[in-house]
Amino acid sequence: MADQTKFLLQDSDVPTHWYNIAADLPKPPPPPLNPGTHEPLGPEALAPLFPMELIKQEVSAERYIEIPDEVQDVYRLWRATPLIRARRLERALGTPAHIYFKYEGASPVGSHKPNTAVAQAYYNREAGVKRIATETGAGQWGTALAMACNFFGIELKVYMVKVSYQQKPYRRSMMQLYGADVVASPSSDTQSGRAILAETPDNPGSLGIAISEAVEDAAGRDDTKYSLGSVLNHVLLHQTVIGQEALKQMEMAGEYPDVVIGCAGGGSNYAGIAFPFMRDKLVGGKKTRFIAAEPEACPSLTKGEFRYDFGDTAGLTPLVKMFTLGHTFIPEGIHAGGLRYHGMANLVCELYDQGYMEARAYHQNAVFDAAVQFARTEAIVPAPESAHAIRAAIDEALAAKEAGEARVILFNLSGHGYFDMTAYDNYLAGGLQDFAYPAQRVREAMASVPVI
Amino acid sequence: MADQTKFLLQDSDVPTHWYNIAADLPKPPPPPLNPGTHEPLGPEALAPLFPMELIKQEVSAERYIEIPDEVQDVYRLWRATPLIRARRLERALGTPAHIYFKYEGASPVGSHKPNTAVAQAYYNREAGVKRIATETGAGQWGTALAMACNFFGIELKVYMVKVSYQQKPYRRSMMQLYGADVVASPSSDTQSGRAILAETPDNPGSLGIAISEAVEDAAGRDDTKYSLGSVLNHVLLHQTVIGQEALKQMEMAGEYPDVVIGCAGGGSNYAGIAFPFMRDKLVGGKKTRFIAAEPEACPSLTKGEFRYDFGDTAGLTPLVKMFTLGHTFIPEGIHAGGLRYHGMANLVCELYDQGYMEARAYHQNAVFDAAVQFARTEAIVPAPESAHAIRAAIDEALAAKEAGEARVILFNLSGHGYFDMTAYDNYLAGGLQDFAYPAQRVREAMASVPVI
Repeated sequence: MADQTKFLLQDSDVPTHWYNIAADLPKPPPPPLNPGTHEPLGPEALAPLFPMELIKQEVSAERYIEIPDEVQDVYRLWRATPLIRARRLERALGTPAHIYFKYEGASPVGSHKPNTAVAQAYYNREAGVKRIATETGAGQWGTALAMACNFFGIELKVYMVKVSYQQKPYRRSMMQLYGADVVASPSSDTQSGRAILAETPDNPGSLGIAISEAVEDAAGRDDTKYSLGSVLNHVLLHQTVIGQEALKQMEMAGEYPDVVIGCAGGGSNYAGIAFPFMRDKLVGGKKTRFIAAEPEACPSLTKGEFRYDFGDTAGLTPLVKMFTLGHTFIPEGIHAGGLRYHGMANLVCELYDQGYMEARAYHQNAVFDAAVQFARTEAIVPAPESAHAIRAAIDEALAAKEAGEARVILFNLSGHGYFDMTAYDNYLAGGLQDFAYPAQRVREAMASVPVI
Repeated sequence: MADQTKFLLQDSDVPTHWYNIAADLPKPPPPPLNPGTHEPLGPEALAPLFPMELIKQEVSAERYIEIPDEVQDVYRLWRATPLIRARRLERALGTPAHIYFKYEGASPVGSHKPNTAVAQAYYNREAGVKRIATETGAGQWGTALAMACNFFGIELKVYMVKVSYQQKPYRRSMMQLYGADVVASPSSDTQSGRAILAETPDNPGSLGIAISEAVEDAAGRDDTKYSLGSVLNHVLLHQTVIGQEALKQMEMAGEYPDVVIGCAGGGSNYAGIAFPFMRDKLVGGKKTRFIAAEPEACPSLTKGEFRYDFGDTAGLTPLVKMFTLGHTFIPEGIHAGGLRYHGMANLVCELYDQGYMEARAYHQNAVFDAAVQFARTEAIVPAPESAHAIRAAIDEALAAKEAGEARVILFNLSGHGYFDMTAYDNYLAGGLQDFAYPAQRVREAMASVPVI
């Protein structure tokens, strides 16, 4: 029989535990700080927003945390996701490299987001929570949480970044199909939303603004908690099912990656694929390289400063130590809406700062070049966000071709692009813009970052 | 461990042969007829439209036909598709029935159509064909063939039913991403299109009209062949990978279906799931029931006559013996665009006429009731076409509940509904129409059916 293309795990091989990299970091990650006192935040400070089980996970130093049965049961609707050898892409590039991708777009909502949405909805249901408020950029997070809240009987309010609400109507429809209430952010439903609308009525919105609205909603109501789709430790924890499955699947393929790649907006899908392999580097002596691929329009890792900053634009959330462009920075309306976040998960930042991984930034056109090449060789149409990882993977494969190396490349295909066809239309019509680095706007935003 | 949800086959278990039910029918199926002479059509009559290998498959009596390596290689990008036990739906219905579904929506283009598109593009490439013309309704066929033609280096022209061209812009974009040229039908690119536009400028189009345009294009150019997404014997042959995989997967589940269900427009996905199990009934003594689910707006099996009729609206194609509503019948613009076909594959009609299977017709609202219930229990949003099969499966499960039977139900989930969110919006807003049976219009159309 010809060469195997897909490496599939049966239901019985879906991970039973999440992997917590905090247990293996050289030193414990720095805690979030109270914005008023600059003192480390205690768990009780997060209690208005999150159920206690998630707060415990946020600060845990335990290496493996058991995935509850009900969560595993929902995971099995689509997990384990396939690991696919991209032989046709390799041939098109003429590279000796071996390219593998983990296809998270196989989930019912088309991305990696339900790995944490389902867990978070479960723990909220266990804590007796009846309503959740959240933000969403391109809609992948909102759709995933809507699916999860529907499963666990929780009411959901979604603040969707305005430019994405307009560009991605089908995602809004899908959230509503699962029973969620969706508004475009900035909205007039919250004070922070109204304040922004008063100042800039045509504001296209950003993840930072939408987070402010959702956090204000949750903090202001006793019956409502908040749920974040990326950045926080417990979110990255949940995503490690991706990398743990990939470890087993690479074993089935008889190979180990030389380089592991993921796109990075808040850092959760990147952490999901990378952290289980990173463990082998932190404690197992492996020399694996890791690359986070981000947009030039929002280059937190490659151009940000490693500072304590707010997680949201209005300054309602705790201070988290992250590579930041400043919490008031609003990126251009690139199609990869899920990567338009001013900061980055602290755990990813620690590893980047300590030299365990690299970061690369790409312009839209280079990203869509890669996306289209991928669609025309491997058939799957990638999400614009995920296409940043494809760009990096293709660049690695071309470098391997130059060097004559059979480099083993693994990247996370975090979502499909079925809802992003307008973006592809724009690209094919030659209408995608590459934006110059907004140095002045970043300088202005950095001026608002707290001095600790 | 908890109950298994998915039954997955490894790449090495993807079928190596297609199954040809013509070899097991009690009597050979009747051939297509020349419209002028009413004599059986010889292979040379089809040569302007199809490559010889496909013509051979169309008339073959060979039970198993080998799938070429290059086709298997492309299949392995997504096959074998999962078989999933719908436990959450069972629980929501409170039924003792066991409901399984084969998820063809897992293909890169989101439906079962590439199973034949890839085969057809391959055989055309082998015959040196450089250009193909085809029609598409909702866009699933056009997208699948665009993907396949891109793989085999063939230029593709797609005539897309106008009402669907307007309702499903993202499918058009996807075809264009794969390199196809797409126009709304009736178009001014062909005589048959221009004739219809002259008579009814606002004609919403139909599959019958679009077939006429594509066939005229192919017949009128030496460099162009035609490709049909359903109805013909070779198309149904290619789809049998679905049921062959399902046979193995049901074995993994330790069960055998009491009833096998698929939606039916042209008949190909229904044949794909049903025919391999039908063999066990034709020659193996099994008493399995089979149900084809069709729309009330286009009820070929439940209300049509079993007559020789044109496969297309303008009368350019051969006469095929099918349950037909008359080749000039234009169904209402229901959202299940892929089921708006006046006829039905002859092989399916033979089995229906001879009592081996049943058919049921459903209105749009009942279909979307089922679709939404499915999305809210199993998370996957189904294509409106496929939701006809879900409606039938749920009805069977409720009947089993009444009867207190642990009935084993298998249905084909032929596609996902990510591109159909407008339809879901309409439904949730209470805007979907159920159309009365258009008796007068069918009578008028039946008057044009040839008398043999």
